[in-house]
Amino acid sequence: MNSLSGFRPVSLIATINEQGVSNLGVFSNIVHLGADPALIAFINRPREAAPHTIRNIEIRGKYTINHIHPAFVEKAHQCSAKYPDGVNEFHEVGLTPDYKDDFNIPYVAESRVQMGLELSEIIPLKNGTFLVVGNLVNAYVSEEALGNDGFINLAKTDSLVSLGLDGYYQVNPLQRFTYAKPDKAPGIIPF
Amino acid sequence: MNSLSGFRPVSLIATINEQGVSNLGVFSNIVHLGADPALIAFINRPREAAPHTIRNIEIRGKYTINHIHPAFVEKAHQCSAKYPDGVNEFHEVGLTPDYKDDFNIPYVAESRVQMGLELSEIIPLKNGTFLVVGNLVNAYVSEEALGNDGFINLAKTDSLVSLGLDGYYQVNPLQRFTYAKPDKAPGIIPF
Repeated sequence: MNSLSGFRPVSLIATINEQGVSNLGVFSNIVHLGADPALIAFINRPREAAPHTIRNIEIRGKYTINHIHPAFVEKAHQCSAKYPDGVNEFHEVGLTPDYKDDFNIPYVAESRVQMGLELSEIIPLKNGTFLVVGNLVNAYVSEEALGNDGFINLAKTDSLVSLGLDGYYQVNPLQRFTYAKPDKAPGIIPF
Repeated sequence: MNSLSGFRPVSLIATINEQGVSNLGVFSNIVHLGADPALIAFINRPREAAPHTIRNIEIRGKYTINHIHPAFVEKAHQCSAKYPDGVNEFHEVGLTPDYKDDFNIPYVAESRVQMGLELSEIIPLKNGTFLVVGNLVNAYVSEEALGNDGFINLAKTDSLVSLGLDGYYQVNPLQRFTYAKPDKAPGIIPF
């Protein structure tokens, strides 16, 4: 059932708890809400199932979202293990915290697409999950992904998608089309 | 900016308006909210930008979500053109409405993963967008995607993801891992 909605953009979300210990969790239900202001949201499961990330975001008001690529997918998946509160997943799985620009929450140094977010709102949904909405305040993207027209080609960062609870997939360009208009067929844009 | 959140599961959402005319729209901000009850949500842009789908869902309380694969990606992209209200995109772009099981809203016959949903709630978000939450009541998946363990491998249906406003991508299996536990490294599961 949890595969039906389709492939998902899988990322590591980094937070820091009240005692200053870093936390990393795997999240894949992530949506783009708008460009101006730049808002990205994700679904946090019910607190009893996934308590640390949402609580740390409530405490600190800040977090980072970091794309996953094949070189560290196994370490990233290991972050989905239920470590006790106060365990630093960076240390446990062997990923590198990357502090920069006074953001005070670590990015994942190994990641090619890193985003810093400030909490906008947390909306509880009827089934016990939460929509966590953040303002994008910082973004770092590997240079190879930047196209001439501002298009960011995440196939060049090899950013992964996931399916179900345990399947990771790579993504390859198929086709870019021109802006669709009612009176004519779409044209092709090179990647 | 709208690429940063990652690749998205791109689908056609079919609805019917008050006069009984079908509508198809392209949506890619789709999230799985939970398995029990089975809930899937999507983001509808502000009403002035994307008025038809959300209004039809409010009127009828039902809609279908249909995965896109390469054979009809150009027709699917053409559904993102701003056709006037009351234009039937099935006819305009050459896709086939598929009525079944007394659901009264068409599926896209060409699609290999078809879902029928009943509206659960519509949550207005601060930036003018809406989170539209639906109960999954019907699902049809091509047989080739069904694995022995209940895993649905959407690489076999060639379900696409999208990036930005106009990029469509294919997806290939990289790795499946066992359920992660704190005390050991994850194992590999065959696809």
